[in-house]
Amino acid sequence: MPNVTGILETALYVNDPERSARFYQTVFGFEIIVKSERLIALAVREGQVLLLFKKGASANLPQSPHDGDGQLHLAFAISRGELEHWLTWLPEHGIAIEEDRTWDRGGRSLYFRDPDQHLLEVATPGVWANY
Amino acid sequence: MPNVTGILETALYVNDPERSARFYQTVFGFEIIVKSERLIALAVREGQVLLLFKKGASANLPQSPHDGDGQLHLAFAISRGELEHWLTWLPEHGIAIEEDRTWDRGGRSLYFRDPDQHLLEVATPGVWANY
Repeated sequence: MPNVTGILETALYVNDPERSARFYQTVFGFEIIVKSERLIALAVREGQVLLLFKKGASANLPQSPHDGDGQLHLAFAISRGELEHWLTWLPEHGIAIEEDRTWDRGGRSLYFRDPDQHLLEVATPGVWANY
Repeated sequence: MPNVTGILETALYVNDPERSARFYQTVFGFEIIVKSERLIALAVREGQVLLLFKKGASANLPQSPHDGDGQLHLAFAISRGELEHWLTWLPEHGIAIEEDRTWDRGGRSLYFRDPDQHLLEVATPGVWANY
């Protein structure tokens, strides 16, 4: 079976990519690596990209069309040592922590929303069997 | 600014999580780490999880509801050496390669669909400034 080395791109479909990009730059520090009318790509880290597609703009591409709707879910890994920082950082930026959950394995997750009400999570190790 | 160490979870919203899980197990070799009526979680690698949510089943959660629709996009990283393997592996499993694209940076991407017509991609290095 051929191998994959990991998740390269995860995508959100947003009303206003510029607004969303400002949010992800300000809150997460992700840098813009590509910007067009149709999408803004942000570097999460080396080898990982968050794609912010303008809703509807990729639905009629001649090749490989795609599109999405709804309040999607996406989680980012954080170290245990960064948790306290996130607990103060989010409210400082006017972002409500919608849920603060401790998992049986000892991990802890904070849930909050981006400008399109997509459900974001930052989670320390101890959530999954493989994290 | 607090740090994130990477993408922990990416999510798809599917009609039949069991059918989708079989697809991702068979085609990618991802193992199931959690299974419920609402979702199946698959390990992509250490510290990375693909979540297959049953469409609609998380829309009315008392905390942190979310849901999605459409043909979402998701990409996995592969090594250059694995590309030939993917080019034979996908058709062998009855999966049409919808697009085969070579990027200016030298990377190459294969696009194909999962059972819900979500747009999947496997990509070698040389696609983005950070990959």
